[in-house]
Amino acid sequence: MAREDSMVNCDLAAARDMSVVNVGLLGFGVVGSSVAELLDENRENIERRAGSRVKIKRILVRDLERYRLKYPERRDLFTCDPEDIIGDPEITVIIELMGGLEPASNYITRALRKGKRVVTANKEVMSVDGERVFRAAEEGNTEVYFEGSVGGGIPIIKPLKQSLAANRITEIKGILNGTSNYILSNMSLEGLEFDECLRKAQSLGYAEADPTADISGLDSARKLAILASIGFGARFTPRDVFCEGIDGVAKEDIIYGKEFGWTLKLIGLARLDGDAVELRVHPTFLPDTAPLASISGVTNAVSVKGHAVGEVMFSGPGAGGMATASAVISDLIEVVRDQLAGINNLGCTCYRSLKVKPSEDICTEYYIRLEVHDKPGVMAQVAGVMGTNNISLRWVLQKRNIGENAEIVFVTHRAREGNLRTALSEIKKLPSLVRIGNVIRVENG
Amino acid sequence: MAREDSMVNCDLAAARDMSVVNVGLLGFGVVGSSVAELLDENRENIERRAGSRVKIKRILVRDLERYRLKYPERRDLFTCDPEDIIGDPEITVIIELMGGLEPASNYITRALRKGKRVVTANKEVMSVDGERVFRAAEEGNTEVYFEGSVGGGIPIIKPLKQSLAANRITEIKGILNGTSNYILSNMSLEGLEFDECLRKAQSLGYAEADPTADISGLDSARKLAILASIGFGARFTPRDVFCEGIDGVAKEDIIYGKEFGWTLKLIGLARLDGDAVELRVHPTFLPDTAPLASISGVTNAVSVKGHAVGEVMFSGPGAGGMATASAVISDLIEVVRDQLAGINNLGCTCYRSLKVKPSEDICTEYYIRLEVHDKPGVMAQVAGVMGTNNISLRWVLQKRNIGENAEIVFVTHRAREGNLRTALSEIKKLPSLVRIGNVIRVENG
Repeated sequence: MAREDSMVNCDLAAARDMSVVNVGLLGFGVVGSSVAELLDENRENIERRAGSRVKIKRILVRDLERYRLKYPERRDLFTCDPEDIIGDPEITVIIELMGGLEPASNYITRALRKGKRVVTANKEVMSVDGERVFRAAEEGNTEVYFEGSVGGGIPIIKPLKQSLAANRITEIKGILNGTSNYILSNMSLEGLEFDECLRKAQSLGYAEADPTADISGLDSARKLAILASIGFGARFTPRDVFCEGIDGVAKEDIIYGKEFGWTLKLIGLARLDGDAVELRVHPTFLPDTAPLASISGVTNAVSVKGHAVGEVMFSGPGAGGMATASAVISDLIEVVRDQLAGINNLGCTCYRSLKVKPSEDICTEYYIRLEVHDKPGVMAQVAGVMGTNNISLRWVLQKRNIGENAEIVFVTHRAREGNLRTALSEIKKLPSLVRIGNVIRVENG
Repeated sequence: MAREDSMVNCDLAAARDMSVVNVGLLGFGVVGSSVAELLDENRENIERRAGSRVKIKRILVRDLERYRLKYPERRDLFTCDPEDIIGDPEITVIIELMGGLEPASNYITRALRKGKRVVTANKEVMSVDGERVFRAAEEGNTEVYFEGSVGGGIPIIKPLKQSLAANRITEIKGILNGTSNYILSNMSLEGLEFDECLRKAQSLGYAEADPTADISGLDSARKLAILASIGFGARFTPRDVFCEGIDGVAKEDIIYGKEFGWTLKLIGLARLDGDAVELRVHPTFLPDTAPLASISGVTNAVSVKGHAVGEVMFSGPGAGGMATASAVISDLIEVVRDQLAGINNLGCTCYRSLKVKPSEDICTEYYIRLEVHDKPGVMAQVAGVMGTNNISLRWVLQKRNIGENAEIVFVTHRAREGNLRTALSEIKKLPSLVRIGNVIRVENG
């Protein structure tokens, strides 16, 4: 109902005497329909701030007949030909909410080259094709706005670009994927295994039927690439991000973590070290007292360290139609204001290139869970391998048997990832080793 | 040293071939000198984003001789006559960092009426004189920017004005004063009394010699009035805020709170209820699991509820020269961009009036600590008074004796503040009452 009213009101708005900005919507799924609904129900407030009426003139959908049947009085609103929108000179603003790399990236860049302003919540396009998109915007002397691409409705792109602009950003760290955070929170709270929590997340609609992008860390890597590109002023893509998912996490790992006073999170971390940047997404033990440790469920959070401001954190619901629509509409308000004033905003803020630090050169602490034959001398053998690889141990814990074998957990001091990999390959060759249960990085800093 | 270099570089910048925006600084204390320092050390980045060179042309100081002696080669930079800055047509941007209501408010409004753009971190001026300031900006067809007035370097004003503009804001809740939060965190962590923690805060520089504004809640009330004015689109001043400080908190209250699973915080709360707004600052018990409960030490945090976005939270260092300078410089970048584009930004976002809900009509839960004569029937008397005033009890706890007297803690269900006040006045008359130890509101929602 609300949506149909929205369609009707678009016309009412257009009929009033204020100037009208015509908008084309690419995609009418959960976020797209939320944008139309939100625009309608808060129209007065939104248009007052935008300084103009806003009319959704055309909507690109895949299944044209379905929408024409659903909204018979608004048949002409829908089209399945992108040219009806991108080629319409009356449409000056395009909101892309189709998701996926192509054809979205193609539509966005074509629209930009024609001088249209584009709002998108597409993290795939902005992370993989960011350079192409900004080049197209420059060619069209226009601008792309993408607040909704990271963290749903949490304001983070604009604050990072503008509010923290006086800072040299040194670190961006966050919980960037609600599905993974829900699963890990649930494993911790209920003491369940990964598979059970994944199924629960799927049944609650917190995880998709194919959850690969979420649990593999790829979704987080895309968002991290976007944030790091803005924060450090250099272009990064998801391929620059060292990435490990949460599907290997066992409930034992979480239980051991609790003994050490740690909470397990899928963390995206971007850190500037000289002229190189560390970019990584992986399950990470954080001290229980760390601000990010208290972020549970589907909530997202981003913490930013700047040399002047110190550490600031932004948190909130990281997904959902209405939350993302909130970010999209805030971009829309800015777009309309910029269009009326005839100005562009900051444009691409990448002005330099920075190296990506090879993953072997990462230094952090490690939690290593091993299953070994329960015989004398095993501990000494493992500790010996660590020592020869320049890795010093902080804690060792042996308290559980698995059948006839023993489970030992080692926690290291800060060590180089390359050294750890060598050590693990040597440990694998020890006759007393049954298997390496898991290796999880620990961020105590 | 860094500051002196900064002065010299101002001239270098001016000598380059890019356009220059001349800035006048009112006040050169901790924040003022941090602004000059930050502008200098991150000049390239800041000027790239601003699109122009920025030169601090004049600085208003009280003790002219002191600064002329300190920076002999920059004698002309300093003045003690505000007219040298406000009356200089070359200075188009004024940064006010003097603090206090007057003469700052007078200088700001005079500058605005002359069409200068003004950046200020002055919460007193913006909360008490907001209406006057915005009217002056309108008269001068210019704009005032005040990101630094709330939450130090945490981006909150701009996100609330712009990024959440699509939302109907229903609640703003925050820890808005670092001094109070440090004292309460310290009382909780160390089990100390208020006075001891205040002295500790003073010795660490977290509290001023006269800490009245911080511990009385007035500082929080000012910031809450600013946030509520933006969030609800109606003008509020600190006089609209029901305000209670933390000086009455005893360590027993914090200990009892822990038994109930609560953390004590000085919370500023603005809540929209129909066409009335609840505005209050007082010590508040929060569930330990509430996001704001984990904000400890001098950190500030603001949580905002919007109908579309859900609940988002912003946190970080709420004070400090460099953190506030970070917010001021981000405003400065926007000012310069707006000036070059010849546009104003959102201006005053208050567009309606809303009633302030009388404090008697507030509904919340209450923690009440009483000292009573240890005789039979006392509990029944108190419970009887509660019942006749329509207040139902949730928990009662009696576990401690004070000399010959007993201490009883009552926790109520949600009740009307007016009813509670009547009940307390009746309880005061009970012969068995020795004294009311404390009454603290509980926000479980």
